[in-house]
Amino acid sequence: MGLEPEKQAVRKRRAVLEAASSVFLNKGYDSTTMDDVAAKAGVSKATVYKHFADKERLFAEIVGATTGQVDALVTMLTAKLADTRDLDRDLADLARHFRTALMQPRLLQLRRLVIANADRFPEVSRAWYEQGFGRVLAALATCFQRLADHGLLRLDDPRLAANHFVGLLLWIPINQAMFTGRHHASTDAEIDRHVRAAIRAFLDGYGGRRRKA
Amino acid sequence: MGLEPEKQAVRKRRAVLEAASSVFLNKGYDSTTMDDVAAKAGVSKATVYKHFADKERLFAEIVGATTGQVDALVTMLTAKLADTRDLDRDLADLARHFRTALMQPRLLQLRRLVIANADRFPEVSRAWYEQGFGRVLAALATCFQRLADHGLLRLDDPRLAANHFVGLLLWIPINQAMFTGRHHASTDAEIDRHVRAAIRAFLDGYGGRRRKA
Repeated sequence: MGLEPEKQAVRKRRAVLEAASSVFLNKGYDSTTMDDVAAKAGVSKATVYKHFADKERLFAEIVGATTGQVDALVTMLTAKLADTRDLDRDLADLARHFRTALMQPRLLQLRRLVIANADRFPEVSRAWYEQGFGRVLAALATCFQRLADHGLLRLDDPRLAANHFVGLLLWIPINQAMFTGRHHASTDAEIDRHVRAAIRAFLDGYGGRRRKA
Repeated sequence: MGLEPEKQAVRKRRAVLEAASSVFLNKGYDSTTMDDVAAKAGVSKATVYKHFADKERLFAEIVGATTGQVDALVTMLTAKLADTRDLDRDLADLARHFRTALMQPRLLQLRRLVIANADRFPEVSRAWYEQGFGRVLAALATCFQRLADHGLLRLDDPRLAANHFVGLLLWIPINQAMFTGRHHASTDAEIDRHVRAAIRAFLDGYGGRRRKA
């Protein structure tokens, strides 16, 4: 019986977070008010303030919450590359998954929101980048180092190689997404062509001598 | 004599644009008012409206105005690669200039402002990308095709090669800048290491057989 109010508090907190996420993504930081969030969540403004002291705290919380998805991505890429017998194929496969994960419309909207407010809340955006994308890069670097140890890749700086891999893969679509708002969708053929070209450019530069074993 | 009012109008228009640029970059789109712009420019609100029908038109204008800087960049990169006798050296030199031009603090702030509003004004952000960065990419692709014709590069798709070049070069610093607000500055040694690594990765993938002639 004593748990009920606590459960309800957890549920309300979650409702506030979901509502805040939706309102921030649609209206941006400046135009979002605590009233909007309360209305969207179907709770009183007092409830919103009970859980989050101010708008900035709420913003930091919704941005931070998404970095949980990173674990799934890290597990996926580690598994894909752990016992590869065909690096070209497995790397292309990983690249497609990776691109799909990073190009989710909601994540792109969040990326835009974070970038928009990076001058004002640099600690929020830095944490988002380091805890999110930074952890993926670190995992990728670890995988690449292991592949290099087995002669499948050739590199001096695994973190830089990971950045080059992702830069080759995502520079085009991320820019398209950032600058064309919600209004751009790549065709499957376009995605396939870009992924292949990125993998080829990466392996031309970083492929080890045992890759074609 | 008849020219004086016209000159004054031109001067006022420019003052409004400069003021608007500064206010938008500092406060973002939503928090900027036509009153702010008038105050910053030292003109009446009526004068602001005489030149720009509304805030959206003013925003589109200040974003569009910066694409003029592109010409200088296009001229520079075309000149650097026109008669290269040492592709590795000239490409690294171009990369450093290119990076410096693209990483100007004001341009990064503008990039952030454009991205922040890309959902709302997709035509503004698309025009900025296509008329700005898109023209630089097109010029780079033309140069790369010419280098390929002379056996110095090896490529199927010059535009994709240009994107890969820029992605290798800018993925790291642009992300750092986007996610750390104004608060990040690379050291010269860091820049040099990243530029060298990007050029090496690019030429490993795209270098032609006559490169080492």
